[in-house]
Amino acid sequence: GIGADNDLYINQAIVFIEDAIQYRSINHRVDSKSLWLYRWYYSRTCQWILSLTITTILALAFIEKPSSLTITSDIRYRLPAWNPPCGLTESVELLCFFVFMVDVSVKSYLIGWEEFWKNKWLIAYILTLIVSLTDWIVSLSLFCTEDVRIRRILRPFFLLQNSSMMKKTLKSINSTLPEMASVVLLLAVHLSLFTMFAMLLFARTKDGQQDKEWVGYFRNLPDSLTSLLVLLTTANNPDVMIPAYSKNRAYSIFFILFTVLGNLFLMNLLTAIIYNQFRGYLLKSVQSSLFRRRLGIRAAFEVLSCLKETPTYAQQSAVSIGALLRVLQKVEMDSRCKQAIMRSLKMCSCDQLSAAQFQKLFEELDKEAIKQHPPSPEYQSHFMRKMQFAFGHAYFGYLGNVVALANIVSICVVLVMDADKQPSERDDFFLGAINCFFILYYLLEMLLKILAMGLRRYLSYPSNRFDGLLTVILLVLEIATFAVYGFPHPGWRPEFMGLLSLWDMVRLVNMLIVFRFLRIIPNMKFMALVVTTLLDLVKNLRAFAGILVVVFYAFAITGIMLFKGAIVPMGNIRFFLLLLFQTCFYIKNNVVLSYKKKSDFMALLGHFEAVVIDCLRYLLSVNLICRWAKVYFVAWWLISSVIWVNLFVALLLENFIHKWDRRCHREPLSDIEYQRTVELMFRDVLEEPTEEELMEKLHQHPHLQLCR
Amino acid sequence: GIGADNDLYINQAIVFIEDAIQYRSINHRVDSKSLWLYRWYYSRTCQWILSLTITTILALAFIEKPSSLTITSDIRYRLPAWNPPCGLTESVELLCFFVFMVDVSVKSYLIGWEEFWKNKWLIAYILTLIVSLTDWIVSLSLFCTEDVRIRRILRPFFLLQNSSMMKKTLKSINSTLPEMASVVLLLAVHLSLFTMFAMLLFARTKDGQQDKEWVGYFRNLPDSLTSLLVLLTTANNPDVMIPAYSKNRAYSIFFILFTVLGNLFLMNLLTAIIYNQFRGYLLKSVQSSLFRRRLGIRAAFEVLSCLKETPTYAQQSAVSIGALLRVLQKVEMDSRCKQAIMRSLKMCSCDQLSAAQFQKLFEELDKEAIKQHPPSPEYQSHFMRKMQFAFGHAYFGYLGNVVALANIVSICVVLVMDADKQPSERDDFFLGAINCFFILYYLLEMLLKILAMGLRRYLSYPSNRFDGLLTVILLVLEIATFAVYGFPHPGWRPEFMGLLSLWDMVRLVNMLIVFRFLRIIPNMKFMALVVTTLLDLVKNLRAFAGILVVVFYAFAITGIMLFKGAIVPMGNIRFFLLLLFQTCFYIKNNVVLSYKKKSDFMALLGHFEAVVIDCLRYLLSVNLICRWAKVYFVAWWLISSVIWVNLFVALLLENFIHKWDRRCHREPLSDIEYQRTVELMFRDVLEEPTEEELMEKLHQHPHLQLCR
Repeated sequence: GIGADNDLYINQAIVFIEDAIQYRSINHRVDSKSLWLYRWYYSRTCQWILSLTITTILALAFIEKPSSLTITSDIRYRLPAWNPPCGLTESVELLCFFVFMVDVSVKSYLIGWEEFWKNKWLIAYILTLIVSLTDWIVSLSLFCTEDVRIRRILRPFFLLQNSSMMKKTLKSINSTLPEMASVVLLLAVHLSLFTMFAMLLFARTKDGQQDKEWVGYFRNLPDSLTSLLVLLTTANNPDVMIPAYSKNRAYSIFFILFTVLGNLFLMNLLTAIIYNQFRGYLLKSVQSSLFRRRLGIRAAFEVLSCLKETPTYAQQSAVSIGALLRVLQKVEMDSRCKQAIMRSLKMCSCDQLSAAQFQKLFEELDKEAIKQHPPSPEYQSHFMRKMQFAFGHAYFGYLGNVVALANIVSICVVLVMDADKQPSERDDFFLGAINCFFILYYLLEMLLKILAMGLRRYLSYPSNRFDGLLTVILLVLEIATFAVYGFPHPGWRPEFMGLLSLWDMVRLVNMLIVFRFLRIIPNMKFMALVVTTLLDLVKNLRAFAGILVVVFYAFAITGIMLFKGAIVPMGNIRFFLLLLFQTCFYIKNNVVLSYKKKSDFMALLGHFEAVVIDCLRYLLSVNLICRWAKVYFVAWWLISSVIWVNLFVALLLENFIHKWDRRCHREPLSDIEYQRTVELMFRDVLEEPTEEELMEKLHQHPHLQLCR
Repeated sequence: GIGADNDLYINQAIVFIEDAIQYRSINHRVDSKSLWLYRWYYSRTCQWILSLTITTILALAFIEKPSSLTITSDIRYRLPAWNPPCGLTESVELLCFFVFMVDVSVKSYLIGWEEFWKNKWLIAYILTLIVSLTDWIVSLSLFCTEDVRIRRILRPFFLLQNSSMMKKTLKSINSTLPEMASVVLLLAVHLSLFTMFAMLLFARTKDGQQDKEWVGYFRNLPDSLTSLLVLLTTANNPDVMIPAYSKNRAYSIFFILFTVLGNLFLMNLLTAIIYNQFRGYLLKSVQSSLFRRRLGIRAAFEVLSCLKETPTYAQQSAVSIGALLRVLQKVEMDSRCKQAIMRSLKMCSCDQLSAAQFQKLFEELDKEAIKQHPPSPEYQSHFMRKMQFAFGHAYFGYLGNVVALANIVSICVVLVMDADKQPSERDDFFLGAINCFFILYYLLEMLLKILAMGLRRYLSYPSNRFDGLLTVILLVLEIATFAVYGFPHPGWRPEFMGLLSLWDMVRLVNMLIVFRFLRIIPNMKFMALVVTTLLDLVKNLRAFAGILVVVFYAFAITGIMLFKGAIVPMGNIRFFLLLLFQTCFYIKNNVVLSYKKKSDFMALLGHFEAVVIDCLRYLLSVNLICRWAKVYFVAWWLISSVIWVNLFVALLLENFIHKWDRRCHREPLSDIEYQRTVELMFRDVLEEPTEEELMEKLHQHPHLQLCR
């Protein structure tokens, strides 16, 4: 009947508006039951369960065999790691697979059968699940004794397919691959030509004294390639040329030429290419998000205009305000936006909305939330008002910064003076006394600021929250110190008491004071710009970081499987850390490859001490110099250092240059917090989609039948 | 008289047009005598003498005391370096100073007294000369025994002031300094905060076993700062954290945080800032060159229009074609351009030229020299024409590439097979035979190509010249080999004869063959793009490289003076090389700083062997850990690696992105050689100066009185 139809239209409008808010695609089924399922699937609980499942299945790697999850890493002290019995992690895995199966079924149902076949991600999802389940069954039937567990390598796929940002980024990276491949090819040509030159230059000679270079680095083709590859990572850079250089100075030309061409030109060319490809990436991504939002709103308008209660005299389609109000009440959205839209609706004199008016109403969604700080309290007394002026003034904040700086300097002075003293000679009185004074000042500053601004206004500034929190922690620590060790006095050197020694307490307080000093950042213009750029970058980098995590996980699991069968089992945590360190200290990445002989390795082991010793003993036992380990580590170096670092630089350039240009155009309002999102950054250059584009897209909708 | 006036005008026009051609400023004296002096000063001979003088005075450093200019660097074999007697280098220096004095006088006279006081470069030039001469007198009166020779540090200034490009670039770098300083300040804050954290974290404990980290890296403030600074250059990266990590895994968080923030964020931020500042640099520089050219042409027009022979009936100023022809005959310019302008002048039907027509005539100067390859010979015989078609075809070139590749592969295979053989076991027959075959093919290819294209057309392609030259050299080498050692046969292992052993000959031939393989580059589109970008970059980088040389020279001389008084004298060449290596292998720059104890140093010395041994023994003797040496090397690291490398990356990005955009817009014509200059790269975006701007500038000319 008409009532049921109207209810359906209302529900469709609700879902479309929610899609628009979340930048989701509207290409899903739109019948009543599907809409209910759709809202249930995208409800917070469901999405939370899905995220939890993904986290769980990824975290399983840390406790699975071969586990090395222990508190200390020193093999002399640590207990053997706990290995779960067969079937425990496997049952958790099965549970996760069950959730994924529900997820993929709901998703497939919602987009419809025809769309399903076009969606490669969904098909890959199903295939991954089938392979994982098969592997799981094999694993259980062998009582967990199998060597190869493919499903572990496939796990990060679940993370990948759940994030639309990551999928988009992956597509974007994919389109850059041809150019990247060209440069990598160029690098390979560079490397191989120079390898041939090197082998011809540093050939074996009859005089055994003269061919140190040949013995050390260019004994055969793989050795020569490795030497030059490691030179490209600059890990072995002066050493590799010393024997040749000592024979003849001119040999250095070869190495300088290789380094300049490879490191300075080709490596930076990679940066240039990646930057060039990614210049438009952020803009394009924001543009498509905008299109999705406008499309969702337009779709909501179209279905609402089909409502039977709309009078038919109007030539153009229109939506009654009553219907929209009904929809708005049920839509889940930010309450500030909802109120703003309701307010504008009530101010509207007409009772019908055209498409343009409808779209305009929802532009509230795009607007930046301008944070209004609560007002300062208004004091009656003249004295209080003077106090308020004095302590609410910016100069009082600057004074606080100066005092914080003085505190830092005093700590620094004490550190320098105490540097060479024995712990037993140390007198904690001076530091205790000055810290006590400074912390009292911080407390006073906080209280006076609260007095001047009122508690709510004080807390509405992030810098004050940071400041206040640290001051309270410092105060608590100081009171605890005095309670346990008494007040400081000359020769104040009490013995260990309670949880922490006095010395540890003082160190902790000092570290917090150093940390608190970061409050000066927003006061320095350039620093604030840099910090906000970095924060933005972190936001925009989430997708990239996610892809890095996916690759990292797959790589680490593959590594653990590849390098199995050693004397000392290679723990999973250990291996994760090994790769992680290689990623962080990206330039020296290939350092393990530059150790070639067993004696060198032993020296390295002596260096690394008990820590990563089993890592490296392990790698030694599988014969690191074997080709596959080499290929494995070189691949990881290429992905983590070369490509990822360049992607990072490209994004940083993009973000920073936009920020910088904006900064020059208009001065930031000091009272508005830095809440710039990538959408707002590109506000000026975004193009609004035209009416025709929107309607064409709507007519292509696989499930929605427009009433006209 | 009128004749004298007319002659003056003609001479002025000649000089202005020459100024326009060379992009020189026209703000110089314009009376007859000055014009003659001006043309003499800018004549090739004079400029050549000036360049020679600058080169000489800079090169003096290599033979001056303390000289270490010897052929071999090995102290066991080399003879003591020749030290010139007192007064020899000094008299050469005096000669150079004399040339510079003439140079500065002429320059000052030509720009005029009032302009002279505004020109800071000229005043600095005179001051430098005065200081240098004073220092020279002091030096001679002390019979060359003085320790400090300021004039050596000042020498690179003469290079700097002679190049307008370098002065412009320096100005541009200067304007970027505030932003760079901000980031360097940020780096300093980052470093000092983390140093304080580290000193608090890794403090001395009562248990001597536990504080390996403190003993090794964080003993006091300078040690801690150095440890973290070296970590920023990644030279000591896994080592520095191992002791702490072995105590507790969580300590690695500190080091990872430091590296990620410092290396990944702040260092790359520097790239972003420098790139952002230099984005417009090339365009601006080209724009100002264009303005100078248009201004010179316009000035020539204005003075020619003052000629008395010009009829007065014209309202607008105009120039007679006869006068222009007279001027053109005396102007020194590219003959191709001159002919083109003459040709268009003769085709012109009118006998007067307006300003716009005059300007248009000289646009020939901006045009790219489109290189017309000479035509192929036209053969009468049908057979010859078929041959010509076959061997002039691109496929024949591709076949040549395939053969070159086959040659490379065969050399590679032989190298791999012979890798572990003793020199006495080696049989050179196989390689000799195949190389003989391949070289015959190369000869044939060259001859056939010459047959098809004709010698002149063949030589007009750079790739053919490269190819042909190498083929001829290979042929000569091969014939020489056969003449000395006879034809190859199995077991062909003759003893050493003549200048080079057979083995050396074969190696040389192989290296040339590998080098010849580079001819494939223009055939691969992406490679050609990359190579042309790199070549362009080298052109545009000349000014930057010049500034680097200036800084390098001043730094090296300062270093030699600072680190004087060692047991082993620190040779100048040795020091130059030490800094040069640090510049080339820029990342490990600070490696010398990471060696702290004497025992470590001895290990390093063992590493570097006899080569740089006296360098390092020297540095050890002055106690490298002394503050000033540290400051010196850190400053050099900042300038050479951080700032210069980033400038390089910025220019590379700028160049590459322009190139890439152009490539997308239009396909390059394959027959035109790559002769793109930076002027042409920006052709589409350059703005023509307006008539008003030009005339305003002309009226501001300090010496030229326009006749209207």
